[in-house]
Amino acid sequence: APFRMSDFKLHPRLEADTAFVADLPLCRVLAMNDARYPWLILVPRREATELHDLNARDRALLIEQIALASEKLKALTGAAKINVGALGNLVPQLHIHVIARNASDAAWPGPVWGHGTPIPYAPDALKDFVKRLGTAIAP
Amino acid sequence: APFRMSDFKLHPRLEADTAFVADLPLCRVLAMNDARYPWLILVPRREATELHDLNARDRALLIEQIALASEKLKALTGAAKINVGALGNLVPQLHIHVIARNASDAAWPGPVWGHGTPIPYAPDALKDFVKRLGTAIAP
Repeated sequence: APFRMSDFKLHPRLEADTAFVADLPLCRVLAMNDARYPWLILVPRREATELHDLNARDRALLIEQIALASEKLKALTGAAKINVGALGNLVPQLHIHVIARNASDAAWPGPVWGHGTPIPYAPDALKDFVKRLGTAIAP
Repeated sequence: APFRMSDFKLHPRLEADTAFVADLPLCRVLAMNDARYPWLILVPRREATELHDLNARDRALLIEQIALASEKLKALTGAAKINVGALGNLVPQLHIHVIARNASDAAWPGPVWGHGTPIPYAPDALKDFVKRLGTAIAP
């Protein structure tokens, strides 16, 4: 049977660490609740762990949605560089990080993963970030 | 004028850290000279820093070449997980890391970037790795 949107369940760790931004045709877009970096996560609504677990049609959608998130996040934040990563060493559900980086940030020029401790947003700041992201990515 | 293959110049840092594996239709495939992890780098032969600097046609080729590298590297090494990343905080030429990871490796479960010091392969071991990669990825 084909994988349906109603079959989709977000991994509990992604659920705990993020806020919902939007559902694009393939991916659920989430905002990481970490005020140190503007940080999106894209989760294809499929059963997949590796990029090569997706079929070619879904991969084509995925790279377009990554590029969209990357471009909009860079414009919204004025970041120096976007970092994109699919690691999944701890969370086996395929998910792609799209992170706005600056030379002044805590982990620069290293990767953000595993560096220091997340700093949650103030509730209003997270709401505002999510709203601006949603307007930019899924208007 | 369109960007031609003859215009392509690899960033000196990528040149210094890697061995040539193959030229796919879009990407040059390199092997990182670091015996700690089986590690490929894909460099689109384009002028680009971010994924969204590529056009949609090149992005579609890129994701297919990443998936190919990911699948073949996983099969070749028996890795537990493939990590894919496009960071570019230090090297502005767009390049995509495809890395075979295992629970027994030095940086697990963290990312490999910025962790410890590269250990070059013995010359014969690097040649052998490059040969097996080339056969798998561009037979």
